[in-house]
Amino acid sequence: MNGPFIAVDWGSTNRRVYRIENGDAASVGRDGRGILSVRGDDFAREASELRERWDSLPMLCSGMVGSRRGWRETPYVATPASIAALAHDTIWVDRGAVAITPGIRHIAPDRCDVMRGEEVQFFGAVAAGLAPAGRLLCQPGTHSKWARVEGEQIRDFSTAMTGEIYSLLRHHSLLAEMLEGDAVVGSAFHDGVREGSKHKLLSSLFGARAAQLLKIRPAKDGASFISGLLIASDVQPHLGAANEEVTVIGDMPLAPLYAEAIEALGGRAYPIDSAAAFVAGISQIWELLA
Amino acid sequence: MNGPFIAVDWGSTNRRVYRIENGDAASVGRDGRGILSVRGDDFAREASELRERWDSLPMLCSGMVGSRRGWRETPYVATPASIAALAHDTIWVDRGAVAITPGIRHIAPDRCDVMRGEEVQFFGAVAAGLAPAGRLLCQPGTHSKWARVEGEQIRDFSTAMTGEIYSLLRHHSLLAEMLEGDAVVGSAFHDGVREGSKHKLLSSLFGARAAQLLKIRPAKDGASFISGLLIASDVQPHLGAANEEVTVIGDMPLAPLYAEAIEALGGRAYPIDSAAAFVAGISQIWELLA
Repeated sequence: MNGPFIAVDWGSTNRRVYRIENGDAASVGRDGRGILSVRGDDFAREASELRERWDSLPMLCSGMVGSRRGWRETPYVATPASIAALAHDTIWVDRGAVAITPGIRHIAPDRCDVMRGEEVQFFGAVAAGLAPAGRLLCQPGTHSKWARVEGEQIRDFSTAMTGEIYSLLRHHSLLAEMLEGDAVVGSAFHDGVREGSKHKLLSSLFGARAAQLLKIRPAKDGASFISGLLIASDVQPHLGAANEEVTVIGDMPLAPLYAEAIEALGGRAYPIDSAAAFVAGISQIWELLA
Repeated sequence: MNGPFIAVDWGSTNRRVYRIENGDAASVGRDGRGILSVRGDDFAREASELRERWDSLPMLCSGMVGSRRGWRETPYVATPASIAALAHDTIWVDRGAVAITPGIRHIAPDRCDVMRGEEVQFFGAVAAGLAPAGRLLCQPGTHSKWARVEGEQIRDFSTAMTGEIYSLLRHHSLLAEMLEGDAVVGSAFHDGVREGSKHKLLSSLFGARAAQLLKIRPAKDGASFISGLLIASDVQPHLGAANEEVTVIGDMPLAPLYAEAIEALGGRAYPIDSAAAFVAGISQIWELLA
């Protein structure tokens, strides 16, 4: 496809809207209308409203909007997956007007994984030269994603429930009262990272509670320590080589925390702008769309 | 102290009552009146009712009833802790009538831990000859406990949030719908144990969700797989030597699952009855009480 279009990065909890023309993009909206706050039969209306506001341009959506709980379920492209395959399996909800990209699945003998939305940013980061091909890419979040783009393909990827576990602990666990503040980079975060590298997350979590109970660690440091603990548990299995380079595609507040943990664990972190990566990836899919 | 008494194993969610005389014990009550379901000013009444029912015998309580959220906060005995120290720091709520045992704390340069109640069973297991001195002891639960009794002392111990994390996942997470059934020993449980030995719990959890989404693993196997995954994550850091022997002090349904995971990970499991261990431990404290 050619010409201007509206691109929507439509996730579970957030939605970001861009107007893209000739590779130039303007972010024209960002709100909390993720799929979990949209009723099944309201997606069409939501999309119409967005289009009406932007000259009735055609619209390309990606992310959880293509999941079973979203607007229209799109397939998963199997690994090794290319951006051409993403374009090929994109579903037109309304031909020429509104389309939704597919996700990616990885099935290996001993494990499997799925991804919806982050693949656009991974391909986009490399396509736009924000990250070199072959470098480890990380997108922190409720479900953090790790992948590489090699030979224009994602051959494998991995997801961790890091952010969701943090949220469960914060809202429903014995640790809730020590997680009321915000996590910040500092000595408590680094203590957590060190603890997280010991491969015993379940006991490290209880130890954090005991440290607070025994007044070994101040209550105000709880969020930073637990954040460091969880992020290190997520990061460490990915740092194969010494000085492993990782491009972190993310936003505040998670991206700087991940970057700090990667460096503390012996890697090198290169943060990039997630919006730029998304725009580059979704623009490529748009051009390839039949 | 001499003579018959009532022993209460009073935890967060459950309460077990025994009538003990000359080392002979009868379990005389088991209910859900753990401390979380008793209001602060109702503990005295609860205790009076129990005593009235059993000849107004004196009563010795242990467990979370001695925590800040319980009836009366008792101290933590520092490691290395002996059963004599537990007796020494037991608090009489009503002298000669009702007492509550202390907990244990462990403070090391890099970590700390607390325990309230399980120490009675650990000491009791060894005192009663149910486990040899020096052997690794495990008590599965919401917060699983690991310790050794060596030279009549607990020098170190460790707690993991295994059961609490399982409960959070079951009730509040993205995995909730796949955790509706009960975990049972079988191939899905063993698959989970194998996955749990890979030291990447946060991504293994998401992988379990993906496997269900992609119909690689049947939904009915979810609880067994996740249970195996979490229990192996808990167990493995404790299995130092090959054929490490572990006495599992527990009940259905957790004890057989822990025993199975210990064996699958190369250890040897020896399940024993938790009530027998408790009775032996609390009887020793009673005899030592001034």
